[in-house]
Amino acid sequence: MKQKYRAAVLHSAGEIQIDERSFSPLQSGEAVIRVQFAGVCGTDIALFSGDYPVPLPLVLGHEFAGEVVEVASKADAGWIGKRVTAEINNTCWAYRKEKFCLACGKGLSTHCTERTVVGIINYDGAYAEYLRVPVGNLHALPDGVSWETGVFIEPLAAAIQTFEITPITPSNRIVVLGVGRLGLLICAVAAFRGAQVCAVSRSQSKLDRALAWGVTAAIRAGQPDWIAAVREWTGGLGADIVVEATGSPEGLSLASEVVRPRGTIALKSTCGLPASGIDVTKLVVDEVQIHTSRCGPFAKAIGLLTRQPLPVGSLVSEIYPLDQVSQAIERAKWTTKILIQPNG
Amino acid sequence: MKQKYRAAVLHSAGEIQIDERSFSPLQSGEAVIRVQFAGVCGTDIALFSGDYPVPLPLVLGHEFAGEVVEVASKADAGWIGKRVTAEINNTCWAYRKEKFCLACGKGLSTHCTERTVVGIINYDGAYAEYLRVPVGNLHALPDGVSWETGVFIEPLAAAIQTFEITPITPSNRIVVLGVGRLGLLICAVAAFRGAQVCAVSRSQSKLDRALAWGVTAAIRAGQPDWIAAVREWTGGLGADIVVEATGSPEGLSLASEVVRPRGTIALKSTCGLPASGIDVTKLVVDEVQIHTSRCGPFAKAIGLLTRQPLPVGSLVSEIYPLDQVSQAIERAKWTTKILIQPNG
Repeated sequence: MKQKYRAAVLHSAGEIQIDERSFSPLQSGEAVIRVQFAGVCGTDIALFSGDYPVPLPLVLGHEFAGEVVEVASKADAGWIGKRVTAEINNTCWAYRKEKFCLACGKGLSTHCTERTVVGIINYDGAYAEYLRVPVGNLHALPDGVSWETGVFIEPLAAAIQTFEITPITPSNRIVVLGVGRLGLLICAVAAFRGAQVCAVSRSQSKLDRALAWGVTAAIRAGQPDWIAAVREWTGGLGADIVVEATGSPEGLSLASEVVRPRGTIALKSTCGLPASGIDVTKLVVDEVQIHTSRCGPFAKAIGLLTRQPLPVGSLVSEIYPLDQVSQAIERAKWTTKILIQPNG
Repeated sequence: MKQKYRAAVLHSAGEIQIDERSFSPLQSGEAVIRVQFAGVCGTDIALFSGDYPVPLPLVLGHEFAGEVVEVASKADAGWIGKRVTAEINNTCWAYRKEKFCLACGKGLSTHCTERTVVGIINYDGAYAEYLRVPVGNLHALPDGVSWETGVFIEPLAAAIQTFEITPITPSNRIVVLGVGRLGLLICAVAAFRGAQVCAVSRSQSKLDRALAWGVTAAIRAGQPDWIAAVREWTGGLGADIVVEATGSPEGLSLASEVVRPRGTIALKSTCGLPASGIDVTKLVVDEVQIHTSRCGPFAKAIGLLTRQPLPVGSLVSEIYPLDQVSQAIERAKWTTKILIQPNG
C-alpha cells in the first residue's frame, strides 16, 4: 500500500480537483479498500451541482467495489485481500461501539444520529485510489459477482428497500415514474417479485430497456394523454403503488395523478430541490400514503444478483479515470451508468 | 313537511344568500332530514373563502344531526321520526346500486368514483332547513347522544380514521400539531387509545383545553426553541407519529421537523392551498412515511361517544340562525365550534 494516494475532492459546487493525501492512522474497527470501480448516481449529480448541499470539501462516491488492503485490528485480518463492497452509513453499529445512540439503540442503525455517510455526509467516498470504511459495513463479493457488478449492490439494495418499506404482492399494479439508473433496478426488483409493472419515461430508449428487463408495459411520458394511458393500464382507478424515481421535484405531483385512492406513492428521489405546488388536499381526499426509503439491505441485493443474475453490467456505458471525475458526473446526466476507475 | 324550504347557498366565494327551494321528487333510497344543528369546520371555511374550490352553487354543511321526515321507499319507513346523522359520501354502496363502480367494487366506498359529497362535492349540505341523503348513509343517534353531540360524530369519525390508517400502540409518542376543532378530537382519540400525546399550538387557551382533554404534554408553537422542546419530549429522536392538523399548507414542513426517522406524519388538513418548499430529500433521507386520511367510521365514533362520553358539547361556543351562516363561518376562524340552527 502506498503512503500517499490521490482523491477527487469536491471543494465547492462544480469544482473538483485531484488532491494528494496521506493516510492518517486507522481508527479501531476500520479497513482500507483499494477502489476498483466507483459508480456515479443521481445523488452524486445533485451533490456536485450543489442542489443537494452538504459540508465540503468532500470526496464523492458511495457505490463501489474494491479490495481490502489493510485493517486496524488483528481480529479483522481475515478481510485482507477480500473483494468487497460496503454499506455507506457509518454508524454506532458499524463501528461496534459499546454505547449506541438513540437510533441504533432502537434498531434504526441506518438512521444513527452520530453517523457519517460515505461520499455524502462528512465522510470521504470512493472517487479516490483508496477509502476507509468500518469493517462492520463490509460485504464480500461472491465469486460470480464481477467488480463492475459489485458497484451495483448499493443502488440495488436501495431499489430493494422500496419494497421492504412498501411490500408488494403479485396482484399489485405498480407504476415506476422515471426509469433511469435507479428506476430500472426498481422495475427489475418489482417484476422479480411478480408484480405487474408499468415503466414511464420521457425517453423511448429507456422504455425499451425497461421492457427488456421485464416490465409489463411502457408508456412515454409527456405524450398527449399519457396520464390517461397510465390510468387505463391500471384498470382505471390508478396504480396500487407508484414509485417516484424521476430525480425531479416535480415527481411527487405527477405521482399523485396516477395513484389510486388509498394507494401508495413510494418516493426515491433525493435531488435536493424543494417540491412546490403539492396539492395536499387532493392527497388527503384520496387518502394516498407516501412512503420514502433509501439505503437498503446489501445481503438481499447480493442474494438477488447471485440467484437471478441481472444484466447490470450492460448498463455501464463508459469508464473514466480519476482525473476526469467532473466530466464523468456531467456525462452521467445523459447516459446510463458511468464508472470511475481510480487505479486504472 | 313544508313544500318549500330555505337553504343558505354559496353562489361564489364569500357570497352566501338564503334561497327558497322546492322539494324535487326523492330518488329511490333517499331520505329527507329536518336539520336540527349543523357544524362549521375548517373545510367549510376553505370552501367559503374559495381556497378549496368546488363546483358552485352549493349548500355547505357536512356535520349535522336531525330527524328523518320522509323516505322514498316503504321499506325504509322505519327511519321516519328517527334522530340521525349521516355519512357524507354518497356512493354506489350508500345508494345500494346494483352495479358498483371500480372503487366500491374494491371495498373503497368512500372513494366511489361516482360519488357526491354532502356539502362539499356536487351535493347540497345541511345549512338548510332540510337535506336529503341516501338511507344507506344514515346512523341513528343513541338516546344518550344529544342533538349537539350528534354534530360531532362526523369530525370524530375523521379523527378516528387517523388511527385506522396509522395504528398506534400505547408505547407511541404522538405529537399533534394544531389542536383546533379537529386536532382536539384527534388528541382525545389518541389519549383514549393509551398513547402519550403532546399537543402543539400557538394558542395557550387551546393547549389548556387539550390538557383538560387528556393529553400528556402541551407545547406552545412559535416560542423560541419550541421545535427542540417537542423533540426533547419525544426522547430526542422525534415523534413516532406526528398528526398534522394545523389547517395550513405549512404544516407538512413543520411536521417533518419533529418526526423521528422511520416515523409517520399523518396529514389531516384539507385547506385547499398548495404546499410549497417541501424538503422531499430530507423526508427520503429520514425514511419518513406520510399518511393521509379523511372520512372515518361513524359506528366507531358513536360507540366512543357512548362508552366514553367526550365533553364535545362544551366546545360549542355559539349558535347561529340560518340567515347568519356567513357570519358564522367568519366567526369560526376564531373560536371552537359554531353550530347553525336552520329551524331555530
